[in-house]
Amino acid sequence: MNNFILNTPTKILFGQGQIAQLGQEIPADARILITYGGGSIKKNGVLDQVHAALAGRTVLEFAGIEPNPTFETLMKAVEVVKAERIDFLLAVGGGSVADGTKFIAAAARYQASPDAWEILLTRGAKVADAVKMGVVLTLPATGSESNNGAVISRRETGDKLPFFSPFTYPVFAVLDPATTYSLPARQVANGVVDAFVHTVEQYLTYPAEGRIQDRFAEGILQTLIEEGPRALAEPENYDVRANVMWSATQALNGLIGAGVPQDWATHMIGHELTAMHGLDHAQTLAIVLPSVLAYKKEQKRAKLLQYADRVWGLREGTEAERIDGAIAATRGFFEQLGVKTRLSAYGLDGSTIPAMIAKLREHGGTALGEHQDIRLEDSQRILEAAR
Amino acid sequence: MNNFILNTPTKILFGQGQIAQLGQEIPADARILITYGGGSIKKNGVLDQVHAALAGRTVLEFAGIEPNPTFETLMKAVEVVKAERIDFLLAVGGGSVADGTKFIAAAARYQASPDAWEILLTRGAKVADAVKMGVVLTLPATGSESNNGAVISRRETGDKLPFFSPFTYPVFAVLDPATTYSLPARQVANGVVDAFVHTVEQYLTYPAEGRIQDRFAEGILQTLIEEGPRALAEPENYDVRANVMWSATQALNGLIGAGVPQDWATHMIGHELTAMHGLDHAQTLAIVLPSVLAYKKEQKRAKLLQYADRVWGLREGTEAERIDGAIAATRGFFEQLGVKTRLSAYGLDGSTIPAMIAKLREHGGTALGEHQDIRLEDSQRILEAAR
Repeated sequence: MNNFILNTPTKILFGQGQIAQLGQEIPADARILITYGGGSIKKNGVLDQVHAALAGRTVLEFAGIEPNPTFETLMKAVEVVKAERIDFLLAVGGGSVADGTKFIAAAARYQASPDAWEILLTRGAKVADAVKMGVVLTLPATGSESNNGAVISRRETGDKLPFFSPFTYPVFAVLDPATTYSLPARQVANGVVDAFVHTVEQYLTYPAEGRIQDRFAEGILQTLIEEGPRALAEPENYDVRANVMWSATQALNGLIGAGVPQDWATHMIGHELTAMHGLDHAQTLAIVLPSVLAYKKEQKRAKLLQYADRVWGLREGTEAERIDGAIAATRGFFEQLGVKTRLSAYGLDGSTIPAMIAKLREHGGTALGEHQDIRLEDSQRILEAAR
Repeated sequence: MNNFILNTPTKILFGQGQIAQLGQEIPADARILITYGGGSIKKNGVLDQVHAALAGRTVLEFAGIEPNPTFETLMKAVEVVKAERIDFLLAVGGGSVADGTKFIAAAARYQASPDAWEILLTRGAKVADAVKMGVVLTLPATGSESNNGAVISRRETGDKLPFFSPFTYPVFAVLDPATTYSLPARQVANGVVDAFVHTVEQYLTYPAEGRIQDRFAEGILQTLIEEGPRALAEPENYDVRANVMWSATQALNGLIGAGVPQDWATHMIGHELTAMHGLDHAQTLAIVLPSVLAYKKEQKRAKLLQYADRVWGLREGTEAERIDGAIAATRGFFEQLGVKTRLSAYGLDGSTIPAMIAKLREHGGTALGEHQDIRLEDSQRILEAAR
């Protein structure tokens, strides 16, 4: 097992009705800015619940944070934070709203440069303070509600970049599974795929004697396999929603990745697909992951066999058959959820692959994977194999 | 899944050499009191490592915290904290030192009564402040390094009682598996049993749709079954020690018990065995747990079958056979580690059971288990069946 530092300071309030406890988690004299996306939280009553919990407080709103939140939009919120002397940000929504709010929190206090885009260019290294924030999660997927990372896009340039900071952990996250009943099926499926791929990226590398980490990762994958399709089939099954929601949080709060190698190639390559073609984040993962696993099956052999056995119950046949079976089962699981796994299924013929590889080079994606041996030509082949 | 609040604020520094990072986690101007037990940390060099990491700081020491730490000893440390204006406590040792230090931290700031024993009588309800503390863990077992609970004994009365407070989470915990190489086999075995039983007590109740919690609990149990005996056989195998250490922390940091029913009957009954007869904490658990499981096998049927299948791989035979097989495997695991599972193995003939039950009544243990249906007469039968 590798050495690690694990910080999970976000207090979790989980369960139906927990939004009502929100007021106790925010200082009474805070000037609060609620940040959200397109307004679904107005339709499903979540915004009303939040306002009820904050009755009597100073509360402003900033709407319009888009999926794959953009620098351009978020900088408008930064102006509001400064002008209104906001000292608590409450993100109400999914991973995009949480990510975007982390950027707002950091950019509003950023001193290192007048250009806050530097936060992304330096991966957050110079962030020295941030406005305190909490999350009311309505879309289980990214795990952003209890980690310190965010991914921000820039319309102007087509960039999509991550940053991390010890100052951008949410203070608390409210997870009420009932808020997810009204999600469109596409978002539910995307969320399950995202959580699944996060888990795989911290698990399917090489054996590193992280036995707890492996078992926990396998437990998350098994739960998503059991409960993901049920969330689509039985949208108002509370326990199913609860298990999906808790899986997504555990998939990316740092726990399963602590002390073990990681391979974020799928996310890095996938980001270029979103930036260039506007595919949903999870769609890009469903396309890229099976292709990465197949391309790297020699290096990932031992863990792929463990995955085949413990997650998919594949114990018959040759090693090669079990490995191919596990990759096929992964692809089949995404397709079962309605998330297509080929570029062609999204109308893409592969002609933009060279342009995406050029962008990947620009974004520093020249040596990906747990061995840093996925070079640009490998990423190109991975995308070509995904046509 | 039940609603829950989960707080895991303790920052974990895990791995060989991490003690050297200690200084960064404690305010530079803090007046530090190192608390420890019988001096094994002097022999194995851990105390020297701690002092090296705190070179130039104001550092005092308080030694002599015993296994099952006593109120009488800890109150002496409280006097030191007050007289020396200590504002950071650093517990160096196992669960007893961590538990005792939590009590010192709370008692030194306790305003509700001049008698700090009230902290135990009220289970910590009136604790409103505590001295900040960190832990350097040298004995994986109790999970105390990253939770807010402690169990304190009182020599004078033979009491052994728990308390909890939001103010007694360690700020950080340093877990260096190499510090555990020199532990006596008995302490290693006890630690594995303690972590195993903590996990079972949050798992073997009734199905509650906590799928992640179940999978994580099973993962901890499987890891302890694989690695516990190896820790005895290969004491300087770093990865084995690392997996045991991380298992014990995960077993009781709140994660696997969040949102699911729990049954702490084994600990509650076991405490009376320690208080009256001085048995090691883990010895009492190894005696009581198999007896509790057998006594409650009807109520725990569904989870016992899941445990038999997923943890012990018992899939043949009738339900009753699989349940009995799982209980026998549990007992066999403890015995394999050298921890005896019968009262008679410790020279006890059962004649003091009525006196222990009387103490259990005094301590409020009148309705134990996940259904609060283990009455005093049931606890008596459980102990009688463990002779």
